[in-house]
Amino acid sequence: MRIGVLTGGGDCPGLNAVIRAVVKTAVNDYGMEVLGIKDGYKGLVEEEFVPLGLEQVTGILPKGGTILGTTNRDSPFHYRVRVNGQDVYVDKSEHAIDVIKRNGLEALIVIGGDGTLAIAQKFFEKGINVIGVPKTIDNDLSATDVTFGFDTAVTTATEAIDKLHTTAESHHRVMILEVMGRDAGWIALHAGLAGGADVILIPEIPFTIEKICAKIKERNDRGRRFSIVVAAEGAAPFGGKQVISGINEGNIYNPVKLGGIGKFVAEKIAEQSGHETRVTVLGHLQRGGSPTPRDRILATRFGSAAVYALARKEKGVMVCLKGENVLTVPLKDAIEQLKRVPIEGDLVKTAKSVGISFGD
Amino acid sequence: MRIGVLTGGGDCPGLNAVIRAVVKTAVNDYGMEVLGIKDGYKGLVEEEFVPLGLEQVTGILPKGGTILGTTNRDSPFHYRVRVNGQDVYVDKSEHAIDVIKRNGLEALIVIGGDGTLAIAQKFFEKGINVIGVPKTIDNDLSATDVTFGFDTAVTTATEAIDKLHTTAESHHRVMILEVMGRDAGWIALHAGLAGGADVILIPEIPFTIEKICAKIKERNDRGRRFSIVVAAEGAAPFGGKQVISGINEGNIYNPVKLGGIGKFVAEKIAEQSGHETRVTVLGHLQRGGSPTPRDRILATRFGSAAVYALARKEKGVMVCLKGENVLTVPLKDAIEQLKRVPIEGDLVKTAKSVGISFGD
Amino acid sequence: MRIGVLTGGGDCPGLNAVIRAVVKTAVNDYGMEVLGIKDGYKGLVEEEFVPLGLEQVTGILPKGGTILGTTNRDSPFHYRVRVNGQDVYVDKSEHAIDVIKRNGLEALIVIGGDGTLAIAQKFFEKGINVIGVPKTIDNDLSATDVTFGFDTAVTTATEAIDKLHTTAESHHRVMILEVMGRDAGWIALHAGLAGGADVILIPEIPFTIEKICAKIKERNDRGRRFSIVVAAEGAAPFGGKQVISGINEGNIYNPVKLGGIGKFVAEKIAEQSGHETRVTVLGHLQRGGSPTPRDRILATRFGSAAVYALARKEKGVMVCLKGENVLTVPLKDAIEQLKRVPIEGDLVKTAKSVGISFGD
Amino acid sequence: MRIGVLTGGGDCPGLNAVIRAVVKTAVNDYGMEVLGIKDGYKGLVEEEFVPLGLEQVTGILPKGGTILGTTNRDSPFHYRVRVNGQDVYVDKSEHAIDVIKRNGLEALIVIGGDGTLAIAQKFFEKGINVIGVPKTIDNDLSATDVTFGFDTAVTTATEAIDKLHTTAESHHRVMILEVMGRDAGWIALHAGLAGGADVILIPEIPFTIEKICAKIKERNDRGRRFSIVVAAEGAAPFGGKQVISGINEGNIYNPVKLGGIGKFVAEKIAEQSGHETRVTVLGHLQRGGSPTPRDRILATRFGSAAVYALARKEKGVMVCLKGENVLTVPLKDAIEQLKRVPIEGDLVKTAKSVGISFGD
Repeated sequence: MRIGVLTGGGDCPGLNAVIRAVVKTAVNDYGMEVLGIKDGYKGLVEEEFVPLGLEQVTGILPKGGTILGTTNRDSPFHYRVRVNGQDVYVDKSEHAIDVIKRNGLEALIVIGGDGTLAIAQKFFEKGINVIGVPKTIDNDLSATDVTFGFDTAVTTATEAIDKLHTTAESHHRVMILEVMGRDAGWIALHAGLAGGADVILIPEIPFTIEKICAKIKERNDRGRRFSIVVAAEGAAPFGGKQVISGINEGNIYNPVKLGGIGKFVAEKIAEQSGHETRVTVLGHLQRGGSPTPRDRILATRFGSAAVYALARKEKGVMVCLKGENVLTVPLKDAIEQLKRVPIEGDLVKTAKSVGISFGD
Repeated sequence: MRIGVLTGGGDCPGLNAVIRAVVKTAVNDYGMEVLGIKDGYKGLVEEEFVPLGLEQVTGILPKGGTILGTTNRDSPFHYRVRVNGQDVYVDKSEHAIDVIKRNGLEALIVIGGDGTLAIAQKFFEKGINVIGVPKTIDNDLSATDVTFGFDTAVTTATEAIDKLHTTAESHHRVMILEVMGRDAGWIALHAGLAGGADVILIPEIPFTIEKICAKIKERNDRGRRFSIVVAAEGAAPFGGKQVISGINEGNIYNPVKLGGIGKFVAEKIAEQSGHETRVTVLGHLQRGGSPTPRDRILATRFGSAAVYALARKEKGVMVCLKGENVLTVPLKDAIEQLKRVPIEGDLVKTAKSVGISFGD
Repeated sequence: MRIGVLTGGGDCPGLNAVIRAVVKTAVNDYGMEVLGIKDGYKGLVEEEFVPLGLEQVTGILPKGGTILGTTNRDSPFHYRVRVNGQDVYVDKSEHAIDVIKRNGLEALIVIGGDGTLAIAQKFFEKGINVIGVPKTIDNDLSATDVTFGFDTAVTTATEAIDKLHTTAESHHRVMILEVMGRDAGWIALHAGLAGGADVILIPEIPFTIEKICAKIKERNDRGRRFSIVVAAEGAAPFGGKQVISGINEGNIYNPVKLGGIGKFVAEKIAEQSGHETRVTVLGHLQRGGSPTPRDRILATRFGSAAVYALARKEKGVMVCLKGENVLTVPLKDAIEQLKRVPIEGDLVKTAKSVGISFGD
Repeated sequence: MRIGVLTGGGDCPGLNAVIRAVVKTAVNDYGMEVLGIKDGYKGLVEEEFVPLGLEQVTGILPKGGTILGTTNRDSPFHYRVRVNGQDVYVDKSEHAIDVIKRNGLEALIVIGGDGTLAIAQKFFEKGINVIGVPKTIDNDLSATDVTFGFDTAVTTATEAIDKLHTTAESHHRVMILEVMGRDAGWIALHAGLAGGADVILIPEIPFTIEKICAKIKERNDRGRRFSIVVAAEGAAPFGGKQVISGINEGNIYNPVKLGGIGKFVAEKIAEQSGHETRVTVLGHLQRGGSPTPRDRILATRFGSAAVYALARKEKGVMVCLKGENVLTVPLKDAIEQLKRVPIEGDLVKTAKSVGISFGD
């Protein structure tokens, strides 16, 4: 049996650990042959493959990134080609299917986020067997308890908070850290809890600058002349969402104009509280680096489980973690549901108990 | 309402995070007063208390250890006192109960392992309200999915494997890392998976040197002239357990005589395979250091949950993690059951798929 | 003998290690009494002191920041006071000298950058004994071979490059990291060398976008479809300096308008090379965190040496590292000379040999 | 021009950085051809070479170990061969020279410790051009201010002390950390200073258990009920040296019998002071892991400088760091002199000032 494996979408610590586990499990347990497809679906269309044996995956477990390369676009169903010096988008899916068949690939293991997996589902509907492995640094996929890469991102963000803490305290400043999380505030919530933040701003809970400043003042009154604010990039003030949609533009909040939520919050806090503020945007640092042990293990389990699913003749499924077990769910169902922070949940309650304000 | 909190048993990253969450939740949410009891139960008998307010727990979240101090012994039910220059053990439990009452402590929050919690249960049976918070670096308590400190220990062990890897490879050596785990192999299994070990030895799976050497030879035949062995301190060869109990001593394996499982395995592998071997005993490094973000969060949740349980008038319970929720279980039931690595479970299966031998 | 110690200017890892060494050496070796002055010179004017004994400096060695607090301004010679709701600047230096004398301080140990030390020199000229300890994260002081905090900043920046590397490689991107260094490119040069950057941009060497793109293309031609650019915040293109001074504004380069050198370079490279680019601004993360062992040791040596100088009756000097020895130089001479990267020096030559372009 | 490069002796972080710099400098600056010699001198005798171009050294800068492999023995002048099932040692140096000439190697760059470099000198005396790059994790070579790998080892040891600190404090224990340093105490001294040790034991200063216990008692009297002892493996009590040489064996101290200095000291302190003690032997962890930025830079400079020396037609020299410059010294002079900690020097004085006892 010969299978293909590809990685798609943004970078995420643990991709190499998945690839390694796929190859080792396929080779060791089932004697399968594995072809690596380069740069996501692009390599499928362009037929750029690389044979993956035990030798090729040696030493990649602790490495960030993906040895296969990845791209953020390049759907075979809407594929960019240059025609007469212009970008034109054409459907290359039949060509891709032809490539798959011509190379004798009996299945594809597709490691990616919702965009990448939605394309995988389309191929499945056209008769190609695919097994999905979920990848999102934001941990915002409801079909799995947790995704690999998230723990590493939280660790990077927590280390950043640890570093900002001493400067904030020495200078009596309000330090703002902007982290990833466009639709869900998981990284901000976890890193904020772990780093001992004073304020956490997440997309799920609209905030007001007044409430943030009230928290800062309360601390000041207790002699704590500094504060740490962790803001998910998708956090927005009350009414802010409408502005983003352009309904009452210019009125309250437009993150694109203002250079991001961190900068916005920093300026507003400085205005209203009189405190010195500083903002740090963590950005791509969250996507890189050696995965934490937990992410390496989860990624390894996902990679092996994808091959197990193939061996069990499952088709069109995605591996996921439920409690302590790695299971599969239909790919179709899996990719549609966003997991947001439950605002009445245990974590938010605990955060409030230890004195963290959500600006609400 | 006034409560006491103490930490008992071996060191574990996250203890301070629990103390901080207990104090913050008690003060912020319920206006309780918290007394810290110094050095475990010793401070209870000796009436050594320290008031804990928001000020006292500032800045301790990222710190290892416990600001309250701890001891490994000193049960009030069997308390060591010096009489005429000799150690005598007496029951000081009634005295301790008197101290509790005289100081107006309506409940104790006891953070500790099975020994410490068993004493807590005894106090509960004598009418003192206690809430337990489980602490074991080994993660071997069946009443909770996971314990704080474990992730930090696994991280420390994985970093050690990462370091040994390059030396092993450069020198074509077999490097053995001995990690904690007297009764259960969780640290060895997780760190071995995360660090890309070739052999993992755990108490749950008796091993033979022959099988270990077969794995090393198989690697050698593929040009991989080095191997990494991770051994839990409680791992033993087939028949080894009996020796430990003294039934057929001298026959096969006696770790006390031989200076630990790591040393034993290193010598035997060198003898049988002819490879150079080196052993590193990680020891106390696993118990120290700043807790990982995950451990800080879990410890914080446990600390808050202990106070929530008090506020809900629960008595004689222990907090625990089940899936994504922190719940309580009767303390009595909780402390009796050891959680061992399921040898037919998902993790061991995955480990074998990626080529790890358990020496069986 | 009673002395005072203060920290001034921006945060820098190792400040606490200096304070600790000052106190321990003063107390242990000479039985001196030490008063900590809070928030830089502000505490001197406002007479906010805190006694520092062995107890107060326990446990602060590995901690970032300064237990004394610091400010970036507040010169007693030009001190901001509010009069009728307006900021007015007055000379409070005589008042400060009065405070020093009234409290019996026979000397001040002043830990700070050029601004802070220039004020120290002014006090020295007015008859107060001062010993300076140099502090600059940028390592741009010619009077000392190296300053504490620099190694930590370089380590933070190198870890960031390590993280960006895998993402750059997986995505075939040009990743730009903007680091500190307004007048001198030491952090960029060291971190770029240590992190394996492909391009390093420093204030000492004006660059052109064309040369940067030529390097990127050369790598591309060898199949290396990604590049890492490390840019000191003060780097500027040929002719850029004039623009900053407003001589031919709008013509080539205005970093304030363009949001920093990183953003400028990222946009220009994308335009000219067609590569995807991403920029990360490291910012305050470079000033925080636990100091590296090297910085802890250097800071400790500086702190002790400042007290030794006092004991030797030296006056108006600054401690510094020369080769393997900690010496003193007249404060007056020390603070005037900027140490810039020698563009014909050994480090730049080595960087070029290993294939790094400076864009020149 | 074609050159060979080999690595010999124990593992050391930075070896790969040297190899990378040698190759990049040789190829980029001089168009030389580089052959890697596998497993130290063994690969020279066995003629096991691997071509090293830019491609082969990509990505190895941050990796520990050596891609060339290394051995601790295998001198061509005293080479082990199996004859009739027995080890016999023969002179293979002429054969090695023949291999060198037959492969057209005009020079060898030899990266190694005193043993490896002494062999290099022998080859030089026989007419082979060699350039040495010093490698010793112990930093005990007088010909160079500092060696790569040392900073990483000190960092690993300091992190270990940081971890032991909290456990020591929580448990009121004396924790002993045994680090490398058979002849010189540099690692112990630097890590002890950086980690805030209370006692440092080094080969240069004989100690007594009484003095150690006096320090522990002094701390106890101030309410500091724990202590950290860092011991270099070569440290010995007064009179201990003689015992090692067998002059008055059994009398005082025999580290081989007692299982190492750490264990010896732990037992004696427990006996004399009544404190609980625990010992950790750091061992091979000090030799592994990703090199610190400082070590990566120094290793890179050494690698480039070795090629520069070749290009300048230097022969039989070793690169070294003197102040801020990388220079060369005759290999012959370089390898003979041990650099020991000056017991009247600045570092020891500072250590004493901050309260560290050397047990003397």
